[in-house]
Amino acid sequence: MSRILVTGGAGFIGSHLVDELIKAGNEVVVYDNFSSGRKEFLENSLSTGNVELVTGDLLNLEMLTKAMEGIDLVYHLAANPDIRLGTSVTDTDLKQGTIATYNVLESMRKNGCKNIAFSSSSVVYGEAKLMPTPEDYGPLFPISLYGASKLGSEGLISAWVGTFGIKAWIFRFANIIGTRGTHGVIFDFIHKLKKDPSRLEVLGNGLQEKSYMEVIDCSRAMIHVVNNFDDQLNYVNLGSSNTCSVSRIAQLVIEESGFSDVSIEFTGGDRGWAGDVPKAMLEVKKLNDSGFKCEFQSDEAVRFTAKSLIKEIGLGV
Amino acid sequence: MSRILVTGGAGFIGSHLVDELIKAGNEVVVYDNFSSGRKEFLENSLSTGNVELVTGDLLNLEMLTKAMEGIDLVYHLAANPDIRLGTSVTDTDLKQGTIATYNVLESMRKNGCKNIAFSSSSVVYGEAKLMPTPEDYGPLFPISLYGASKLGSEGLISAWVGTFGIKAWIFRFANIIGTRGTHGVIFDFIHKLKKDPSRLEVLGNGLQEKSYMEVIDCSRAMIHVVNNFDDQLNYVNLGSSNTCSVSRIAQLVIEESGFSDVSIEFTGGDRGWAGDVPKAMLEVKKLNDSGFKCEFQSDEAVRFTAKSLIKEIGLGV
Repeated sequence: MSRILVTGGAGFIGSHLVDELIKAGNEVVVYDNFSSGRKEFLENSLSTGNVELVTGDLLNLEMLTKAMEGIDLVYHLAANPDIRLGTSVTDTDLKQGTIATYNVLESMRKNGCKNIAFSSSSVVYGEAKLMPTPEDYGPLFPISLYGASKLGSEGLISAWVGTFGIKAWIFRFANIIGTRGTHGVIFDFIHKLKKDPSRLEVLGNGLQEKSYMEVIDCSRAMIHVVNNFDDQLNYVNLGSSNTCSVSRIAQLVIEESGFSDVSIEFTGGDRGWAGDVPKAMLEVKKLNDSGFKCEFQSDEAVRFTAKSLIKEIGLGV
Repeated sequence: MSRILVTGGAGFIGSHLVDELIKAGNEVVVYDNFSSGRKEFLENSLSTGNVELVTGDLLNLEMLTKAMEGIDLVYHLAANPDIRLGTSVTDTDLKQGTIATYNVLESMRKNGCKNIAFSSSSVVYGEAKLMPTPEDYGPLFPISLYGASKLGSEGLISAWVGTFGIKAWIFRFANIIGTRGTHGVIFDFIHKLKKDPSRLEVLGNGLQEKSYMEVIDCSRAMIHVVNNFDDQLNYVNLGSSNTCSVSRIAQLVIEESGFSDVSIEFTGGDRGWAGDVPKAMLEVKKLNDSGFKCEFQSDEAVRFTAKSLIKEIGLGV
């Protein structure tokens, strides 16, 4: 049993991870500012009595340092969840990404906490020339401000490993989807259909194509990586083994909605917004070779998520 | 003729770059907080009347945004010059590196300035497994806080290219040495010998080995790269074609000092301090293939620098 702090632990991915950590018999401190996290996501895990909830912001270094007392391992998941915000307000990802990660590392240093697991992202690869993209790919030139904050955070973590001797596990996530989702393409499609079941607007030409991973698979994979990789600095792509296009997602969401005669309308262009990567496919050999198996591949993860979120959100019919 | 802003333009490398930019007929705005820059480094260039000097900090976004008016191209060189500080105070590089770069980019965006050249560093490669290290090397795991700030800055710049359509040139510097140097191994050795000509303490075992580039070569190379590389995002290693060990540097500095019977004392260990990279050698094919030629290779650059800095600093004999 370990005492584990999860930043963003009340969020979409964080709350699922907390569920899995509790199942495995750990004590968990959830640190969340509830900007997108929700207390009801923690209903089950709070009821076990093994979760302590701290409502705090990562930019509050003093509060964070206090919460870090006696912690063995930090899962640092908190971040601005909406990658698209970076185009209008430019300092959101810098603050809630890079600077927040600095604060996590500094509060660990002050408390002698030596272990961090971090949710980085496939967006650090930018528009990679090699797909599926392996972990050792270079150069790393993200095209979104969100991606810049993930790369900046990775650099801070590797510097802390090299300078202060901590141990780190860096996960580079595919698109993570599933229940409790609060943003992203499936979430958006459902809300659009709820508003107008006769048409579905799709940003871009629909050919954008990415790896998707179901959120419980993702949570299990994180814990698996921490338990099975033992270098001082470990970095592993987390994703399923294939991709799904945005057109296909639109089709799957419409199928699951039960609506007929929905006209799909593409806004055109090769990407949904400035900073969107048109195609992302991760090489997941490192994860699979370590003995991990996903429950869902991309297509099934999308269908499962569409079904679950339609139940959560409701289509008003 | 362009109107060019140079951050850190009164510093060691910046002031040499300003000299070269003025020679090429440009108007230059120097933006410097004089934390390590010196007005006397700009003596020659100021006398031409084509340099405007702004004393300001990059963390002052308002002042920076004002200085950015009418600028065609920014050379962003300002940074914490002492890579070793990162082990005692941990937020110096975050502020003077990553956040400062964010402010440069944001002030460019506000003024519609579309071109940035940036002094990154070979330290973004961390302890690279491949040497000489090419530009497309991955993964990028710097081991110093200084390195983290360079990687974080690169990510911000590539995000600005991808999101706001600016054009960028990223230079990954070898160790840059030469006249006006205010830090680094040669500088330290001369100061140690000045204090005690009978012995020279060398941090580490002396086997640390890196590429060195003379600062005027470096300044010419930066301008060459901006003029000869035309992608939206360009990234080029800047260094000479070979390396020099720390032992050899000690030997060269002692030779140039004229002192005899200096005992060299090694503190031991494979690196000078936590966060020091024991060996760094850059592949410079991209630079050389573009038609650039260094005046000095590593060994000659070290000897030339030792000679010049001994003249600047004086040995008190």
